[in-house]
Amino acid sequence: MSARTVLERCDELALISALPDGLIERTYLTVEHKAANAAVAQWMTDAGLATWQDAAGNVCGRREGARPGLPALLLGSHLDTVPQAGRYDGILGVLIAVEVAARITASGAALPFALEVVGFGDEEGTRFGATLLGSRALAGTWDPAWWSLTDADGVSLREAYAAFGLDPEAITRAARRPQDVVGYLEAHIEQGPVLEDRGRALGLVSSIAGARRTLITITGRAAHAGTPYPLRRDALAGAAEAITLIESLAPDLGLIATVGRVGAQPGAVNVVAGSATFSLDLRAASDEQRDTGLGVLLTKIDKVCERRGLSVSAEQTHVAETVHCDPGMKAALAAAVAAAEEGEPLELFSPPGHDAMAVAALTRVGMLFVRCAGGVSHHPEESVNEADVALAIDALHAAVLNLAGEYGTLAT
Amino acid sequence: MSARTVLERCDELALISALPDGLIERTYLTVEHKAANAAVAQWMTDAGLATWQDAAGNVCGRREGARPGLPALLLGSHLDTVPQAGRYDGILGVLIAVEVAARITASGAALPFALEVVGFGDEEGTRFGATLLGSRALAGTWDPAWWSLTDADGVSLREAYAAFGLDPEAITRAARRPQDVVGYLEAHIEQGPVLEDRGRALGLVSSIAGARRTLITITGRAAHAGTPYPLRRDALAGAAEAITLIESLAPDLGLIATVGRVGAQPGAVNVVAGSATFSLDLRAASDEQRDTGLGVLLTKIDKVCERRGLSVSAEQTHVAETVHCDPGMKAALAAAVAAAEEGEPLELFSPPGHDAMAVAALTRVGMLFVRCAGGVSHHPEESVNEADVALAIDALHAAVLNLAGEYGTLAT
Repeated sequence: MSARTVLERCDELALISALPDGLIERTYLTVEHKAANAAVAQWMTDAGLATWQDAAGNVCGRREGARPGLPALLLGSHLDTVPQAGRYDGILGVLIAVEVAARITASGAALPFALEVVGFGDEEGTRFGATLLGSRALAGTWDPAWWSLTDADGVSLREAYAAFGLDPEAITRAARRPQDVVGYLEAHIEQGPVLEDRGRALGLVSSIAGARRTLITITGRAAHAGTPYPLRRDALAGAAEAITLIESLAPDLGLIATVGRVGAQPGAVNVVAGSATFSLDLRAASDEQRDTGLGVLLTKIDKVCERRGLSVSAEQTHVAETVHCDPGMKAALAAAVAAAEEGEPLELFSPPGHDAMAVAALTRVGMLFVRCAGGVSHHPEESVNEADVALAIDALHAAVLNLAGEYGTLAT
Repeated sequence: MSARTVLERCDELALISALPDGLIERTYLTVEHKAANAAVAQWMTDAGLATWQDAAGNVCGRREGARPGLPALLLGSHLDTVPQAGRYDGILGVLIAVEVAARITASGAALPFALEVVGFGDEEGTRFGATLLGSRALAGTWDPAWWSLTDADGVSLREAYAAFGLDPEAITRAARRPQDVVGYLEAHIEQGPVLEDRGRALGLVSSIAGARRTLITITGRAAHAGTPYPLRRDALAGAAEAITLIESLAPDLGLIATVGRVGAQPGAVNVVAGSATFSLDLRAASDEQRDTGLGVLLTKIDKVCERRGLSVSAEQTHVAETVHCDPGMKAALAAAVAAAEEGEPLELFSPPGHDAMAVAALTRVGMLFVRCAGGVSHHPEESVNEADVALAIDALHAAVLNLAGEYGTLAT
């Protein structure tokens, strides 16, 4: 049974780790990366795919379509992990794709496009900070500035390429040309509780949220710790109230808000903070909702600060556009999900980023979510249900055939 | 008029500064320290005192009592400042003491003790981090570990001593013997709004709060910024709620609470914090009130964390006992304040520390607070009222005579 095989392979990859005691960490351009690529390449070969490692360290497998050299439908996700990871985030999508390829090979179908499976080498950005390095290389959006990024040991990305046996000068060879691809489909665990709450195995992704990040600085007046309350203009007390407010307002604004970094100046134990800064990461189903929500939050924070005699400034540090899944890819997946689950597919947006975000710069993308227990991800407790995985394989398989039908029609 | 003279001298010392544009900064063992000592020594001489600079850089002046070599009543405060300071914090107390000495000299009174005025070289700890260096040297509680403390330029305290013309090996000579002193009185601006609120010029200090400092660590689970709210165990959100709670509960618990330092780990913009730490500095009128208050706060923080699925730990990083002013010194001051103000003296505790805290290790202490505008201190806007200063001089003068009467009686 193929879902069982997929889960066994997830277990097998979980053993390839830089951490002891069963903990999982597999990062870009490491020996673990090399070992995972080798294992996946073998499974790709077993699935009838011709395999290679591309110029960015992504492992690729290809089955030609009705005739050699046709543009390819890409299926994939990533093989790297965060520290102390689960065994499904990314990996499950790659192995479902391999299983779908195996089924198609077994069926002997002559598709109107080549079928490729890609296991991306870096999505999480664990080692070098920048995320989606594998999929950005494939999408042709590699930034040469990344070469000087360093890991925790001071090894630059350029040095790590050489140590892995890759040629930094050849990075552009990893980039696909738009005319060589027909689209990209990715299956991934949901990393959220929506499917579980709704009792659904699968979800159809409408969009992948583009984060907007703001650095907020609140300024008051530094004073010694003996200063009575009425005389304080305590920037950190203001920041604490603002952070609490953000958390309480975000859900009703449709926002996923994260304050992950905070500091107070002068930062002495016995000095009332003269200023405090914190980061704010906002995600929503659409850029409009996200940006409107940010405006509301900043207005509320302004009011808190005004009441406290503090001033506030906000600086945008990052913004990424939300990637909307392609209607055609969504339709192919929707029909497949409806058939697999026997019901109207549930659409939802993805607060976390995915390889599909990067690949969207190259070609149209579609994404399928698989229910995960408790919505937990990036944690050893990550888990999925075998029956759900079986449905996901069925759905991704059906989506490929749906696209083949559509593409065959268009091609005639 | 003597209050006028005191204020003019405060203005004159304000010109001795390491900062331009009228801003005041005068720190330990600098050229500004040397210049301030010279000016104050001249005024001491004018007041009939024999002057010297002690082994810790404190400027001292002495008027013998009824016969040479009697134990001394010390009057004093500090001459150093924080950066961008006001002109009265510490300085006012030294110059009031000089004025009181001048009056006693002018009266020709033969006191049953010697009278000394001390202008301490370091109370604020601005340059080397450790506070009360001048008064601790005089009290004989100097810690040799301080010699390796460095300033912002990397100059060690030991090197600064040599550069100032002092011999570090001679530091113990600054220490007074308990049998050579009869007590210590200090006048100081209140650095708080209580006297102004109550319409009082002077206040009788009951105690000087000993701070208790706790490092609080809240632990949750790190997760990526796309994680939905129901799945988060956000340590920083918990810390923000705790900080807000501390601020709202502290006044009713009789606490002055300060959270001056905060951090979140891993501290990435796009990661929900797995842990967050913050410092808590607590002061109250008594150690009991302070420690009871800490217990209440920690219990409430525990509840917040329990509700959020977070754990919390608290580590004590510093504790100083509250210094209670001596009943005899307080009685001498109380009678003097009652006479000067024509009313029952207002007693209050001091949240900030003072030289009297350190001197209490040597001898009994008493403190007099002088109203300051808006309660502002450590700021260029620090200001006092000339009439209040006149009352403070009268009160400190009367307190010295009260003690002389008492001491004379005891000595017979």
